[in-house]
Amino acid sequence: MKLLYPTSIVLDVDSLKGFAPTLHVYDAKKPIPDDLLDAEILVTWSNSPDNLSEAAKRMTNLKWIQSLAAGPNDVLNAGFDASKITVCTGSGLHDHTVAEHTLALLLCAARRLDEMKEYQLQGKWPGHLGGPQPDRPKGKFTSLRGANITIWGFGNIAKMLTPSLVGLGASVKGIARSNGVRNGVEVVSEDSLQKVLSETDALVMILPGSEATKHALNAERLKLLPNHAWVVNVGRGTSIDEDALAEALDNGSIGGAALDVFEKEPLPEGHRFYKTKNTIISPHAAGGRPQGAEELIAYNLRRFLAGQELKNVI
Amino acid sequence: MKLLYPTSIVLDVDSLKGFAPTLHVYDAKKPIPDDLLDAEILVTWSNSPDNLSEAAKRMTNLKWIQSLAAGPNDVLNAGFDASKITVCTGSGLHDHTVAEHTLALLLCAARRLDEMKEYQLQGKWPGHLGGPQPDRPKGKFTSLRGANITIWGFGNIAKMLTPSLVGLGASVKGIARSNGVRNGVEVVSEDSLQKVLSETDALVMILPGSEATKHALNAERLKLLPNHAWVVNVGRGTSIDEDALAEALDNGSIGGAALDVFEKEPLPEGHRFYKTKNTIISPHAAGGRPQGAEELIAYNLRRFLAGQELKNVI
Ligand SMILES: NC(=O)c1ccc[n+]([C@@H]2O[C@H](COP(=O)([O-])OP(=O)(O)OC[C@H]3O[C@@H](n4cnc5c(N)ncnc54)[C@H](OP(=O)(O)O)[C@@H]3O)[C@@H](O)[C@H]2O)c1
Ligand SMILES: NC(=O)c1ccc[n+]([C@@H]2O[C@H](COP(=O)([O-])OP(=O)(O)OC[C@H]3O[C@@H](n4cnc5c(N)ncnc54)[C@H](OP(=O)(O)O)[C@@H]3O)[C@@H](O)[C@H]2O)c1
Repeated sequence: MKLLYPTSIVLDVDSLKGFAPTLHVYDAKKPIPDDLLDAEILVTWSNSPDNLSEAAKRMTNLKWIQSLAAGPNDVLNAGFDASKITVCTGSGLHDHTVAEHTLALLLCAARRLDEMKEYQLQGKWPGHLGGPQPDRPKGKFTSLRGANITIWGFGNIAKMLTPSLVGLGASVKGIARSNGVRNGVEVVSEDSLQKVLSETDALVMILPGSEATKHALNAERLKLLPNHAWVVNVGRGTSIDEDALAEALDNGSIGGAALDVFEKEPLPEGHRFYKTKNTIISPHAAGGRPQGAEELIAYNLRRFLAGQELKNVI
Repeated sequence: MKLLYPTSIVLDVDSLKGFAPTLHVYDAKKPIPDDLLDAEILVTWSNSPDNLSEAAKRMTNLKWIQSLAAGPNDVLNAGFDASKITVCTGSGLHDHTVAEHTLALLLCAARRLDEMKEYQLQGKWPGHLGGPQPDRPKGKFTSLRGANITIWGFGNIAKMLTPSLVGLGASVKGIARSNGVRNGVEVVSEDSLQKVLSETDALVMILPGSEATKHALNAERLKLLPNHAWVVNVGRGTSIDEDALAEALDNGSIGGAALDVFEKEPLPEGHRFYKTKNTIISPHAAGGRPQGAEELIAYNLRRFLAGQELKNVI
């Protein structure tokens, strides 16, 4: 039995040893070599579309794909036979990195570092942002302390992010598919959107990409946010109606947006978001560096060999 | 007995009532009116130099000045009679705001938000900063997780900042005037500079301005830092030899600098720092918004009236 792992990430292969399957490295950007096509287990990370579509056609023994991506749309769209193959996500491997980046975007927005940079690049001192200032004036998002932060998509990443926000003095609420308290945070369903959005200083979107989440934040819902509220998106670009968001930014009907994900990536040259007001563009940089991949693979490998249910099955 | 408080900050005056002194508001940018010159207590916040120098000459009954600034150099340089007047700082009122801003600068540096902004302003996608990336490669400062953060000046602000850093997975060390463990953090004296600087991924300077701290970070000590290390300064500009820092930035002998304070503020047009590599310029924006001023004033007022030692005496 063969397990294939990709060259696209540095793995500590020693921590995968001790199980029956033999371990074989492969190049994620090239066709899988003939002598490895009989493998039953494939670990994927930033594979090329060709690599995956060929693997889908030719790896007829394949039983389990362990992706290291949080949302492995590449694998799901490659044509693998879902009736024979279990696909697992890398959910959990990106919690720290995405939570950290989200915090960076929120603080950058609140403390106006992006505006400072604009001045700096013109060789100018942004005096209006420094010196004596009113402390957290109403109708502005100037600090996490005392701010209402709403996290839409209250899963693993949100749970990692919350303690940092609370430690800085923010009030955190979640939105998910069901009501209830999770990790000490009040989570509401979309029935309560009107109330929760109208009390939000910064809305953090961490929704997966799916038909159900498409344009979750649309023109109508953007109107529920206060004029000073920021929108941060680190989930998927499709969860926001980008035209409606661009309008809201230019109208000043929201405070700003920090976006790590877009409907089309890379964001094309000349795209409106490069010029909309108070916008921070991050190039899908929140995750992209799985942490703890070996532990997840070894954990699932043991369960796979024991015939037990795997973790992170799609 | 009169207590004068300034118009330059919104104070909840009700929470100063109940003591013997009468409360009088004054304009911090104008001469103090004749009928208030006999006051014994003066609260200051961003007073004009003229206001202070006139007050120093004409307020002959003055016994106690409560500044709301962490480093009230303005009051100290105004000519007040130190033999008759107790001056107290606003140390503690800026802990949250400065700690938050410092965290923002550290995260901005690690997650390269400043570089992203440069691309954005040119309408370009900084692809090299997004997508699949190596996780925390050696010789780069890409995350607070696992980073060695050294805080030089381990006082109130450092103690407020540390839990956020530790929560994000950083290892924190302090440098102060004496060795020992403070709030669970190992603090060393300057004897250990060589070792601690050489192991630092980001150096946070939170030193007060004084003769003793002048150019604490000089050319020789900058050389002790690894090439990838960032320097963040939120203390006072005088604690860094700016020419040496600018050299180090342009040579690439350090990773970058995020500076909130400068020897000369505003940083003059055409100053070298507007063009040095990997530099983030923040316009003395870390503090500047005292929080909890009423509690400090009321606390010290009670002690003043009781003849007890005041808090934050210089
Ligand atoms: N920017 C990046 O670099 C990056 C990196 C990694 C991940 N991501 C994105 O982040 C997403 C979330 O990751 P995660 O690990 O936190 O996922 P997770 O643990 O699966 O959490 C997803 C959350 O979204 C909620 N949700 C799903 N569909 C919803 C709907 N239709 N309406 C309302 N809420 C819905 C879920 O609600 P329930 O709890 O009620 O089920 C859950 O709270 C991933 O799917 C991926 O797209 C981005
Ligand atoms: N950027 C802004 O907007 C802003 C706002 C507020 C404050 N600040 C600056 O931040 C400074 C620190 O504030 P804080 O409230 O944290 O002050 P603090 O509680 O008094 O702490 C000062 C720290 O600096 C150390 N220190 C003083 N002189 C030193 C020397 N010669 N060598 C080594 N260490 C020395 C002290 O060491 P010991 O503990 O051993 O005494 C102490 O750890 C203020 O003085 C002010 O200049 C800036």
